[in-house]
Amino acid sequence: MALPSRVKIVEVSPRDGLQNEKEFVPTDIKVELVDRLSAAGFPNVEAASFVSPKWVPQMADGADVMARIQRRPGTIYSVLTPNMKGFEGALAAGADEIVIFGAASEAFSQKNINCSIAESIARFEPVVQAAREAGIRVRGSISCALGCPYQGEVPVEAVVDVAQRYLAMQVDEIDVADTIGVGTPKRVREVMTAVTRVVDPARISGHFHDTYGQALANILAALESGISIFHTSVAGLGGCPYAKGATGNVATEDVLYMLRGLDIETGVDFDAVVDIGQWMSSHLNRKGSSRAGNAIAAKRAA
Amino acid sequence: MALPSRVKIVEVSPRDGLQNEKEFVPTDIKVELVDRLSAAGFPNVEAASFVSPKWVPQMADGADVMARIQRRPGTIYSVLTPNMKGFEGALAAGADEIVIFGAASEAFSQKNINCSIAESIARFEPVVQAAREAGIRVRGSISCALGCPYQGEVPVEAVVDVAQRYLAMQVDEIDVADTIGVGTPKRVREVMTAVTRVVDPARISGHFHDTYGQALANILAALESGISIFHTSVAGLGGCPYAKGATGNVATEDVLYMLRGLDIETGVDFDAVVDIGQWMSSHLNRKGSSRAGNAIAAKRAA
Repeated sequence: MALPSRVKIVEVSPRDGLQNEKEFVPTDIKVELVDRLSAAGFPNVEAASFVSPKWVPQMADGADVMARIQRRPGTIYSVLTPNMKGFEGALAAGADEIVIFGAASEAFSQKNINCSIAESIARFEPVVQAAREAGIRVRGSISCALGCPYQGEVPVEAVVDVAQRYLAMQVDEIDVADTIGVGTPKRVREVMTAVTRVVDPARISGHFHDTYGQALANILAALESGISIFHTSVAGLGGCPYAKGATGNVATEDVLYMLRGLDIETGVDFDAVVDIGQWMSSHLNRKGSSRAGNAIAAKRAA
Repeated sequence: MALPSRVKIVEVSPRDGLQNEKEFVPTDIKVELVDRLSAAGFPNVEAASFVSPKWVPQMADGADVMARIQRRPGTIYSVLTPNMKGFEGALAAGADEIVIFGAASEAFSQKNINCSIAESIARFEPVVQAAREAGIRVRGSISCALGCPYQGEVPVEAVVDVAQRYLAMQVDEIDVADTIGVGTPKRVREVMTAVTRVVDPARISGHFHDTYGQALANILAALESGISIFHTSVAGLGGCPYAKGATGNVATEDVLYMLRGLDIETGVDFDAVVDIGQWMSSHLNRKGSSRAGNAIAAKRAA
């Protein structure tokens, strides 16, 4: 099976990785994290979130982070925008890309935002419209695409339906996200095959969590389904609220290690990423959850 | 790509998992571990090692373990036998299968046992002969099949060469072992494709370590190459001496979770395995390294 020769890694640690940290991470550290990631060669860094600080206090300094980072030419800096107010913040901050989001699970949508999937996506229409007028890229995320903490199984058709709604709104990129990390390779293939029937695979990204240890196998299955954009988080930063103590986002180091072995180009400096993971973990005063990162750091120390 | 519909899991935690534990694990606990694993449905449990207690003090009670376990009809109890003396112990203990071992790396062989690969395999000839005469199964393990801590890359031809030597000695099963966990899916496919050209895939097993987080992706690649026997260790027991603090054997729970998602039968009771992993980790006074096991235990506790 022919795998893509090049993969785009979207580094999500500054936003998706840090948002659940209880201790506030100083703005200086966030800025340094974003700058080190862009310097390491990531073509896309999810840098901040323009959500209400009441909801996510950790992300309250998004405007400061965006103002203080060193913009690297060619790097796409993405920010999460839940609504029009968030979009205005993103626009003022000079974001290159905004991220909107909806779930493929009706139960999740009702429980979390008290409205149907269809309504939740429709609410983003003015945001997408405004972004397009401002020449800002739009990424639409489909959460719970491989399973839901409330309803369990999520039909493939529901994922395709959300993808089509995003497509109708002309978003640039669509994330298929395994929010709780329950997916396995067979299901990944089924979902990716169904979604790539309606959306150009070059516009689809895979966002896998490693909660059940499945993320790398799922990425391999997605690569075999023609997907070439993946979201990763250095040192596996980002917890999963549904499984205390379990890991969340797949670790960037583990993914880069696998891609290098598959002869797939990313343009990213692997050794620099291992350094960033160790630095960030030491700042957070805990061991990171990247197996490749920890193994290499241990070898270096030996 | 057609995957096997059934996989045989060889549970290696009582031997490969525990052998590097510094604190001596009481014989009672080892016996309980083996008995719980066989009761959970594993068709093959690597139960003990008949090596010199000077070399591996943790395994000094192998004869006691074998004498006290409850033999489950149909379960294969394997033991490691480095030489004729070990074989005599295995025979007296009523082992169903002995495990012999050699490396695919010349540097590893020279450094560890001070002889060539060819010599190291030839030394096992009388052991294999004796086992065959006694009607005991023989498994031949090929360590460093995907990389070596001393020479780095290991040629595919070297792995095939060891497999052919084992084949000539009429061993029943051949393990392709990624001893230091450095392999990635492309290399796994290359090696498995080459080995299955000379050996029936039904006689080949994959032994993957998760040191760099690659084990599940590697197992998926091996399944796609027609391999249907895998070695796993509950709670990921078993360290890797070359990467302090890094994980070793792939966790049984993570593998079973993936296989279930792939609709592949194992005959193993998944929930019982999660229990065993939590029990054993609590005995060892540390958190196990199975992501699926920890996520499920956390969900149960919630």
